[in-house]
Amino acid sequence: MKIENKIASDVKIAYIGGGSRGWAWTLMNDLARCKDMNGEVALYDIDYQAALDNEAIGALYTALPEASAKWTYKAYRTIGEALTGADFVVVSILPGTFDEMESDVHTPEKYGIYQSVGDTSGPGGIVRAMRTIPMFEDIGLAIKEFAPDAWVINYTNPMTLCVKTLYRVFPEIKAFGCCHEVFGTQTVLRTALKETCGITTASRSDIKVNVIGVNHFTWLTDVRYQNLDLMPMYREFAKQYAATGYLKGKDANWMNNSFACSHRVKFDLFLRYGAIAAAGDRHLAEFCPGKWYLADPDTARNWGFGLTTVTWRKNDLQNRLEKSRKLRAGETPIVLKDSGEEGVGQMRALLGLCEPLVTNVNIPNQGQIPNLPLGAVVETNAVFSGGSIMPVQAGSIPANLMPLIGRICHEQEAISTAIANRDLAAIFDTFAADPLVTCTLAEAKALFKEMVLATAAYLPDYNLSDL
Amino acid sequence: MKIENKIASDVKIAYIGGGSRGWAWTLMNDLARCKDMNGEVALYDIDYQAALDNEAIGALYTALPEASAKWTYKAYRTIGEALTGADFVVVSILPGTFDEMESDVHTPEKYGIYQSVGDTSGPGGIVRAMRTIPMFEDIGLAIKEFAPDAWVINYTNPMTLCVKTLYRVFPEIKAFGCCHEVFGTQTVLRTALKETCGITTASRSDIKVNVIGVNHFTWLTDVRYQNLDLMPMYREFAKQYAATGYLKGKDANWMNNSFACSHRVKFDLFLRYGAIAAAGDRHLAEFCPGKWYLADPDTARNWGFGLTTVTWRKNDLQNRLEKSRKLRAGETPIVLKDSGEEGVGQMRALLGLCEPLVTNVNIPNQGQIPNLPLGAVVETNAVFSGGSIMPVQAGSIPANLMPLIGRICHEQEAISTAIANRDLAAIFDTFAADPLVTCTLAEAKALFKEMVLATAAYLPDYNLSDL
Amino acid sequence: MKIENKIASDVKIAYIGGGSRGWAWTLMNDLARCKDMNGEVALYDIDYQAALDNEAIGALYTALPEASAKWTYKAYRTIGEALTGADFVVVSILPGTFDEMESDVHTPEKYGIYQSVGDTSGPGGIVRAMRTIPMFEDIGLAIKEFAPDAWVINYTNPMTLCVKTLYRVFPEIKAFGCCHEVFGTQTVLRTALKETCGITTASRSDIKVNVIGVNHFTWLTDVRYQNLDLMPMYREFAKQYAATGYLKGKDANWMNNSFACSHRVKFDLFLRYGAIAAAGDRHLAEFCPGKWYLADPDTARNWGFGLTTVTWRKNDLQNRLEKSRKLRAGETPIVLKDSGEEGVGQMRALLGLCEPLVTNVNIPNQGQIPNLPLGAVVETNAVFSGGSIMPVQAGSIPANLMPLIGRICHEQEAISTAIANRDLAAIFDTFAADPLVTCTLAEAKALFKEMVLATAAYLPDYNLSDL
Amino acid sequence: MKIENKIASDVKIAYIGGGSRGWAWTLMNDLARCKDMNGEVALYDIDYQAALDNEAIGALYTALPEASAKWTYKAYRTIGEALTGADFVVVSILPGTFDEMESDVHTPEKYGIYQSVGDTSGPGGIVRAMRTIPMFEDIGLAIKEFAPDAWVINYTNPMTLCVKTLYRVFPEIKAFGCCHEVFGTQTVLRTALKETCGITTASRSDIKVNVIGVNHFTWLTDVRYQNLDLMPMYREFAKQYAATGYLKGKDANWMNNSFACSHRVKFDLFLRYGAIAAAGDRHLAEFCPGKWYLADPDTARNWGFGLTTVTWRKNDLQNRLEKSRKLRAGETPIVLKDSGEEGVGQMRALLGLCEPLVTNVNIPNQGQIPNLPLGAVVETNAVFSGGSIMPVQAGSIPANLMPLIGRICHEQEAISTAIANRDLAAIFDTFAADPLVTCTLAEAKALFKEMVLATAAYLPDYNLSDL
Repeated sequence: MKIENKIASDVKIAYIGGGSRGWAWTLMNDLARCKDMNGEVALYDIDYQAALDNEAIGALYTALPEASAKWTYKAYRTIGEALTGADFVVVSILPGTFDEMESDVHTPEKYGIYQSVGDTSGPGGIVRAMRTIPMFEDIGLAIKEFAPDAWVINYTNPMTLCVKTLYRVFPEIKAFGCCHEVFGTQTVLRTALKETCGITTASRSDIKVNVIGVNHFTWLTDVRYQNLDLMPMYREFAKQYAATGYLKGKDANWMNNSFACSHRVKFDLFLRYGAIAAAGDRHLAEFCPGKWYLADPDTARNWGFGLTTVTWRKNDLQNRLEKSRKLRAGETPIVLKDSGEEGVGQMRALLGLCEPLVTNVNIPNQGQIPNLPLGAVVETNAVFSGGSIMPVQAGSIPANLMPLIGRICHEQEAISTAIANRDLAAIFDTFAADPLVTCTLAEAKALFKEMVLATAAYLPDYNLSDL
Repeated sequence: MKIENKIASDVKIAYIGGGSRGWAWTLMNDLARCKDMNGEVALYDIDYQAALDNEAIGALYTALPEASAKWTYKAYRTIGEALTGADFVVVSILPGTFDEMESDVHTPEKYGIYQSVGDTSGPGGIVRAMRTIPMFEDIGLAIKEFAPDAWVINYTNPMTLCVKTLYRVFPEIKAFGCCHEVFGTQTVLRTALKETCGITTASRSDIKVNVIGVNHFTWLTDVRYQNLDLMPMYREFAKQYAATGYLKGKDANWMNNSFACSHRVKFDLFLRYGAIAAAGDRHLAEFCPGKWYLADPDTARNWGFGLTTVTWRKNDLQNRLEKSRKLRAGETPIVLKDSGEEGVGQMRALLGLCEPLVTNVNIPNQGQIPNLPLGAVVETNAVFSGGSIMPVQAGSIPANLMPLIGRICHEQEAISTAIANRDLAAIFDTFAADPLVTCTLAEAKALFKEMVLATAAYLPDYNLSDL
Repeated sequence: MKIENKIASDVKIAYIGGGSRGWAWTLMNDLARCKDMNGEVALYDIDYQAALDNEAIGALYTALPEASAKWTYKAYRTIGEALTGADFVVVSILPGTFDEMESDVHTPEKYGIYQSVGDTSGPGGIVRAMRTIPMFEDIGLAIKEFAPDAWVINYTNPMTLCVKTLYRVFPEIKAFGCCHEVFGTQTVLRTALKETCGITTASRSDIKVNVIGVNHFTWLTDVRYQNLDLMPMYREFAKQYAATGYLKGKDANWMNNSFACSHRVKFDLFLRYGAIAAAGDRHLAEFCPGKWYLADPDTARNWGFGLTTVTWRKNDLQNRLEKSRKLRAGETPIVLKDSGEEGVGQMRALLGLCEPLVTNVNIPNQGQIPNLPLGAVVETNAVFSGGSIMPVQAGSIPANLMPLIGRICHEQEAISTAIANRDLAAIFDTFAADPLVTCTLAEAKALFKEMVLATAAYLPDYNLSDL
Repeated sequence: MKIENKIASDVKIAYIGGGSRGWAWTLMNDLARCKDMNGEVALYDIDYQAALDNEAIGALYTALPEASAKWTYKAYRTIGEALTGADFVVVSILPGTFDEMESDVHTPEKYGIYQSVGDTSGPGGIVRAMRTIPMFEDIGLAIKEFAPDAWVINYTNPMTLCVKTLYRVFPEIKAFGCCHEVFGTQTVLRTALKETCGITTASRSDIKVNVIGVNHFTWLTDVRYQNLDLMPMYREFAKQYAATGYLKGKDANWMNNSFACSHRVKFDLFLRYGAIAAAGDRHLAEFCPGKWYLADPDTARNWGFGLTTVTWRKNDLQNRLEKSRKLRAGETPIVLKDSGEEGVGQMRALLGLCEPLVTNVNIPNQGQIPNLPLGAVVETNAVFSGGSIMPVQAGSIPANLMPLIGRICHEQEAISTAIANRDLAAIFDTFAADPLVTCTLAEAKALFKEMVLATAAYLPDYNLSDL
């Protein structure tokens, strides 16, 4: 890679999980619209055919006359080949299949435990971590061997534990985790600003926020538009829609949309805790005591969010496979658009092609949140600048939030160690203490066993007879 | 007070709650047996007659021919008189009456929430704190005014929050909280040592322990007899009795004893977490998710501990009132004995009458537990020496215990602030997030309202119409 | 003040020390060139006539046809009037007169102690702090009373102690200290980049740096242009000019320029310590043991920097008074130019008129430098955004630099407390331990006495007979 | 080793440097007087004959009829044999010979740098560390291999760096450093108590102290006899003798005694800093700016302490060799006495043979001094109990002392790393910044070179041509 006249050429981006039918196309779109970078995207996927499909689709993006930059997309058979020489590594994988995820999400329902996502925390998140962390150990070691100087961007969940694992196996790694959940809350704030103050010119990124917490359970302690403190305005807005949720712009059957929410959980948490919970309500609910928002499907519905079923995900995958086929075949024309994602912008900032970018990121705590453990992966703002990511001092977690945020952070630290040690008993202790696990100890034990066995194909290192 | 020839004379001990029918007599006993201190015990109680009763009973202790030291017991009508000139202040009060406690402990049962003690944590502990903390604000300010240099020993629950309050209103106070729950676990270890290794010569205090945690949820990370590491021995013992509990020496209907337990919870926590939970099982259970050991009365019974009813406490109080009458009337003869308590020994160490004493104590964290917040009241060992208490560096809470211990510590910090601010909403947030509160958010709100109203007579500073 | 269409109008800037003949004109220049702010600059100075002069000169700036914004300049007789309603407060004062400074800088020479600046650290800095800190106590309290919500920018030396004092007397103050010394080192790096790599397009602010340390003894631990690590390049450059200094672009008698240096000290420190000392050599030398670079005037000259005499400063003041007269009289025409200063840019960022600005700033340590004391004023980068300044996590001071940087930071903390207490003995302890004070203890005592008496007119609160 | 009936038998103590003509005999004396331990002392020394001599002398101690316990003394040819099976390891060696020490102490005098001891800090201490640390790397690794569970007591200087090295090469080591300098200050306090208050019954160990700092530069922030605060009394005493020193009980030519002092430095530091400097004045002086107490031999003499010459040490060694010969030959009779040392008492406490012992010790900082770096070796009190040493929370270094104590602690951390890396340039940086090094940078460089070359025989790993 070299930079001349503020243009970076021969950039190599290795994409682990490069057969993706979603994120990969967003990346292609954003790269095609980026004027000052070009090079190769090396696609690696355990499903090589999927990587080949994206190689072909990538070529179509590059062939667009309106593409600002010409990128080569190439599928590789080994991770080493894909990584060698990489300037950036993108990691976005599905750990296991939707069959395992089906167990993660739905087996707990037998014990009255409902999860709206099931991929981050709670029983689903913990068991998902059991099969994901070994994969990230392998990925981290491969990066250490083949691309130790590359910047590594993770999009995979459970985000915190994935990033933690990369740093555990390769402490010098330059990895960070990115998530757009905060963007959604900035958008809510923009909407509120428009509705409450009539200010229509603010873009999502014009809403400046101080981010603090852990991924999917992030909180905003300071929100501004220009020098305007948005907290009082948001308080009015939250009060107004606390009971009904904010539904404008949503079509009649929006509750069928697995990712939508009416923000009632967000408003409730804000009005109770005084800081802005900043993720989708489906995520936020999973970090709270199970009886609050997830007591049963009706409770969730009343709070205005849906439980994303894995059946829905399986159907959605079929749609995306079909979309992949059509894209590749040229049946669906490719149209460049503003994706709203920041990955390419972060790469540009890290190459020093633009002014420093301040945005939220998941990296080990080096003091940016003084009252969470050093080394725990936390989410705050950071300054992306040429060659460096420096976290912004976000301040301490407020005392009233520590029982909630401290709890999950300590749980994640404990799980990380327990899975690193393949220690089933220690994993279970954290599982049983999770606030979503509202059943008895004996039931929790039975549930854990059933869930672990359902994902056993991905757990070769454990002695499962200990269950 | 003066010390000559290693004898301290004219020592003044102010006893807040000096009408006590229990602790007060233990103190009288221990003072009568102490050879190198004498002086006055100033009894203050909102029930002046009770203080007068103890004045009379104290005189009987002093009159015993075998009493080593002659102490004067005197009831005072005002706290200021009692405190003036005090070298030591003992605080041991019942906040409110057993009627309020009845609500603390039993109202939650309407929502399926069972508490074995209900005075420390969980819904009962939180509401008890609401009425206790204002009392401790007054006590702390009185000490600041009348006895700012005295050593202050608190025995009242909720221990952590009482001590925290004293330091909040008078940061220079020399206060510490004492609790004998750890002694009980040392006794279990001594028993195990005898049964497992045949060592019969170890006394309770010969079992040296490293104490870490918060009051009633303390843990031992190092246990020794002489240079022998007792952990492997205790592991065998715990495994042996994990299923049945350890019942030897208990009479047939021990479960009717409101304070007894079979240590099954203690053994279970040890076998799962690798450190020794060191309090009575009734206390330990209340810091864990409600469904573990307190799902219902049967669950508790199966784990080998009872739920202490407030009816029992009321009956017990009648017995103690009768005992008081008989003691005063000379109907029950006074017999000096080894109480097993350390209060007088701590006083002697603080006067420098003996070698430094190493024992467990509740004081603000100044780094003795590096991974709990500075200023939070924690329980560790400390060195009691002439004129000083210096905490012992206890080490960090192990990562697998942080979700449990960190949780309660953060909760207590949040409650402390919320009650200091008389902020009902903030108190409720912590209430609702407590792991014993296994009901829905709406139920939690109703429960909180009912419990707060039941103790309303002690909450003049709150705007209860906000409930 | 209000913001509409990204233009802030009715901004009020209070200027304490507004009679300045230097910084004030730079501010006028920068405001005149700023397109999106307008309002009033309230000039307050103990020399009211000087403020009136600047009122007149300010009007001339505003009258320029090329001025982008129309600002009103107005002199006030009281600090309260100047501060009332201020959005920003600029503090840039001369504490005392050059007569006191003459003693600060030159009296130590009697004992063989030479200072190149004498306003920050060492004997001169300490005695200057003695008279400056009481002034900043008054300023801080006035801000608390009249403009508690204003952003406060300090330019006065000793920077660290001035900012510390503001926070001590008014902990909620939104104050920060600005200094352009780091800019000078960025310029050296830009020069080196040009000379070594032939890159001519980089501007000063294109050189991205991680700043760590205390004011005037700041260090860069990461330096980048785009994604290029500049450390290896700078190492070659420093080696090349280590012996001779870098003199290009300086005229023959540059050593007569009191602010110039040949960067030999900077190169020497870099080659010895591996991080880039980033201030003028005159400042850097004063934080090192006195015998290193300041043993005597010849040593300083050999290292390529001059000792700024106060005679020079007095002459310079005459020149500036004359310049003031000419400006006011219209004899010197006013020409707008790029000042290279960032103050106005910082104001714009704090109003949210532009994207967040990342630049170096002096504020209390809240963890941005984990191994310096919390609350000590340190210099690192920070993100200036609408309504907030959030420090960037700069990382720990490297172990080999801690003896130097830790030393001065601890000294400043000690001085701050000692002066707050008007404790002459404690001030002297720090004075005597300063590495520039190379004389004996008895000589140090005599020197301290003489210096303090020379500034006695500004020390009404001290009992100087204790000297 | 086994403990029965509170008697530990078959204890093995490995003594590295077991040919010692001083400490070794004190140990023999103390072991002979100890009633509840017996076993073997394994003597290892690079001078095998010296170890054999002590084997013989040890046998004489054991043969004494009044010896309470029978110990076997045995010289070993290899360190591995000596260590195998050891319960305790004592390390007390002379690193190099007095010829190297002669250079350490006296070469700096060529540049006007005088040292009173020269073995801990300053130029002598730094160069001594260069040859000592590699030896301690070997010793630490040998302990790791042959006696990983043993308690390791170091007496060798530079204490801090020796202990740091043991933990660096073997982090799980159970090592601590012991020094009796604090005892001397307790004795001064006892004397003052007697002279000022007429209290004659206090023993040295009855003076309870809170210890804080680094070895040989320890400070007492709390001093008590019984519950009496001794600070006011000591203040009077220090004032009374500040000018003359305290000389009672010293014979006419006490200044010829290389270890004596009149405590004037101690009094001066106390009166200036408000905490009690607690080591011999010869040590204290070396941690202060060179011009304070060590400007030249006359200055030292005026402050009432001598500069210990290496000529004196060489003569003293001859005396001790002669004493060894006489002891072995039976010409000097062996008489048991109270040595005043605590080593054997510490061993007893670690075996749990007595109540916990609270005494000062040098171990890595785990938070016992919150404002010094974690992991730096610091000196505070600790609780010695069966199987454990737990440091006592000593509180933070007072702000006014941080410039002095923080400075040396940071310097030691930097030296430790620099020597671990055999990095001559980094070692020199710390050398040049030491407050005793009052010469110019060029002179410092020449001095460093000469001193390093004088000890070159012990520096095989360095590339000395870099000097």
